[in-house]
Amino acid sequence: MMKLGAFLPAPGHHVAAWRHPNAYPQGCLDFDYYRRLAQTAERGKFDMIFLSDGAGVRTHYRNAEELSRQGRMVHFEPLTLLSALAVHTTNIGLAATASTSYNEPFNVARKFASLDHLSHGRAGWNVVTSATDAEARNFNLEQQAAHADRYRRSREFIEVVAGLWDSWEDDAFTYDKESGRFFDPDKLHILGHKGEHFSVRGPLNVARPPQGHPVIVQAGSSPDGQAFAAQWAEVVFTVQQTLEQAQDYYRGMRKQIADAGRDPEHVKILPGAFIVIGRTQAEAEDKYETLQDLVDPVLGLSLLTAQLGDIDLSGYPLDEPLPELPPTEGSTSKQQMIYQQAKREGLTLRELYKSVSAGRGHRRLIGTAETIADDLEEWFLNEAADGFNIMPDYLPDGLDDIVELLVPELQRRGLVRTEYDGRTLRDNLGLPRPAFAR
Amino acid sequence: MMKLGAFLPAPGHHVAAWRHPNAYPQGCLDFDYYRRLAQTAERGKFDMIFLSDGAGVRTHYRNAEELSRQGRMVHFEPLTLLSALAVHTTNIGLAATASTSYNEPFNVARKFASLDHLSHGRAGWNVVTSATDAEARNFNLEQQAAHADRYRRSREFIEVVAGLWDSWEDDAFTYDKESGRFFDPDKLHILGHKGEHFSVRGPLNVARPPQGHPVIVQAGSSPDGQAFAAQWAEVVFTVQQTLEQAQDYYRGMRKQIADAGRDPEHVKILPGAFIVIGRTQAEAEDKYETLQDLVDPVLGLSLLTAQLGDIDLSGYPLDEPLPELPPTEGSTSKQQMIYQQAKREGLTLRELYKSVSAGRGHRRLIGTAETIADDLEEWFLNEAADGFNIMPDYLPDGLDDIVELLVPELQRRGLVRTEYDGRTLRDNLGLPRPAFAR
Repeated sequence: MMKLGAFLPAPGHHVAAWRHPNAYPQGCLDFDYYRRLAQTAERGKFDMIFLSDGAGVRTHYRNAEELSRQGRMVHFEPLTLLSALAVHTTNIGLAATASTSYNEPFNVARKFASLDHLSHGRAGWNVVTSATDAEARNFNLEQQAAHADRYRRSREFIEVVAGLWDSWEDDAFTYDKESGRFFDPDKLHILGHKGEHFSVRGPLNVARPPQGHPVIVQAGSSPDGQAFAAQWAEVVFTVQQTLEQAQDYYRGMRKQIADAGRDPEHVKILPGAFIVIGRTQAEAEDKYETLQDLVDPVLGLSLLTAQLGDIDLSGYPLDEPLPELPPTEGSTSKQQMIYQQAKREGLTLRELYKSVSAGRGHRRLIGTAETIADDLEEWFLNEAADGFNIMPDYLPDGLDDIVELLVPELQRRGLVRTEYDGRTLRDNLGLPRPAFAR
Repeated sequence: MMKLGAFLPAPGHHVAAWRHPNAYPQGCLDFDYYRRLAQTAERGKFDMIFLSDGAGVRTHYRNAEELSRQGRMVHFEPLTLLSALAVHTTNIGLAATASTSYNEPFNVARKFASLDHLSHGRAGWNVVTSATDAEARNFNLEQQAAHADRYRRSREFIEVVAGLWDSWEDDAFTYDKESGRFFDPDKLHILGHKGEHFSVRGPLNVARPPQGHPVIVQAGSSPDGQAFAAQWAEVVFTVQQTLEQAQDYYRGMRKQIADAGRDPEHVKILPGAFIVIGRTQAEAEDKYETLQDLVDPVLGLSLLTAQLGDIDLSGYPLDEPLPELPPTEGSTSKQQMIYQQAKREGLTLRELYKSVSAGRGHRRLIGTAETIADDLEEWFLNEAADGFNIMPDYLPDGLDDIVELLVPELQRRGLVRTEYDGRTLRDNLGLPRPAFAR
């Protein structure tokens, strides 16, 4: 079965989404709006809701006027939101981003373990190292650590987190009123980690999560990111533009997973799919043009700058092809991806920012349920994807339409479920439950 | 009106609570159990739910066998739990503990701002500096920082948090689809904090909280703690055993608040009240004896050790009066409080640990609705308290009985509300909304 994430940043993925007449930009801090989205995604039998996050306002901007053109720089802290959604949903997975650069492993282990208990086994952690200086400046730094250093910290971080999740064996808590023993002392394990970045004794003050470990999601596509994913990820969220590119990535990633001694079937690779859906092709294209016409040029350029890793693009001519770019400490793979897209399609800077504005660098699918299902099916059946992280253009309409039109078409083709397989995210993704590690 | 907090650690405040036949020790990680507790407290028109927290297993223990006698060393991370409770309650305030020693101010500011938006203005932050080496060892330290150093960090920490909450003016977000301006650029304020412990640029990626700032709760009673409370606290949670002691504290605290240039009416002082309630005095005493009989001696001593700040008591004779104790880097005021109690009541170590086991050092009220209401009323009317942080013996029965028996008695006397005053925690506590600070 094709696995589907619902990637749901209010008010949608198109950068002008919030300006759409039907969009509700206040939704970024409105629980009722998010509850409705989550329940819609659950009605569509999505595997999980996916929430991105930044440890600060990440958008590149030169002044407040430029920033004010953005449609999303305030929003719920994602674990706060997912905790609340957990108790208004039943089956859908709940995956949130948390940074290994600006948190402590003990706190992250606790929060995701708590969410996993709260949701009866539906938590996922999207592990990021963060990629902007803007975030670093909220955490006592002038600029972020080098890419390789962030990943070194990240590798130690997740080891500590996984170790803390295994502080208590699954059946450690016996609650034996008679003997006065709350737990079996033989089933407590002190981590006692001492490493380059962290010294963490443990135990965690949360019982082992219902899933053993919450599902690990990873979205880094750089060599460091891929190596991390090969070792740890169970869901890989990736940016892929063409079938061939996606196949190369898919096969390469699965090889790396096998080389790391893991079963590639236990990792679900989900390229992002930015979707504009209509009842007819013309309706979809109209919808897309409506959104594109709402893109403010100042904003478009600002967003592209952020995607390319804080490179100042203000000196480059807008209507000539994109020049060679200097290297960056940001997300280098993303920069390459966007750069290749510009070359491939012969885009000017202006065309590129419009293109990037739409899907934030992700593949755009603009069409009917049938044409979009064709596209997704082709990738799914040809070793390019195990499923997709679905990115609606604007919310809530975009998700409503996907659930009303696209999901039934995929169900008719037998590509996605019509009922949930189980209660946990692992059950639904078909992932094994990690055995206790000591 | 008397203000009431519902201090609700599953399975209750008595250290043997979990062993009571009616207790549900699994409740520590069971949302439905907590939802019922929260809804009961809301039915009782409590001002807020109060959740304590530790950044690790805080109990003093020499080995796993000793630890296994504890009834509560795993539990939900409190913000995870309060986020979920926020969307199953309407009026009751939601106050959680977060440490200034083991978090970053940007993360704490975000989480409480998010909870305040999620709950439409019902969030409170109980600011603690943490007080055990056990927690420090989960955060790259061998032992905790000195008491004074923790408070110095704490003072800078809260300044940063308050500054981040004021990143955006209340009406900054205009969502103006026409002009393409999501917010008014003149209403964004960059913090740009650079201090001894923190460099934090901002802005926060959450809009100004509905309450302006979530309500600040503080529970430190040392001179540093009191100075902190005088400057920042809006609710003070305190341990007081006798009326005279409570009056001294109350008057002294209000004087310090006034000296700090604040209105003492804007700070609510709530001593803890450990309550065992029965329909008759005999029923209450029976209930208490049932719980006391369930205290494991190894556990009692271990708990006392933790309360006194990680002092090893294993060498002292159990049936002689408590000796002079060495100073500690833990919570010195708590140590003094317990020490004074032992002297006053002429307790042996064994008697003291039994006494401390019951209320964790807090004042015990064992009686009927009438006698307990008499006690609370006396303190409330005689400058000893603005209300109480109510600590039920075991849950859920203890809270059920308080809401069924004690609250109606207090209502009959006109001491507590019969309906909520408003929707926000500030409305209900009668606290002003902080003006935008720049």
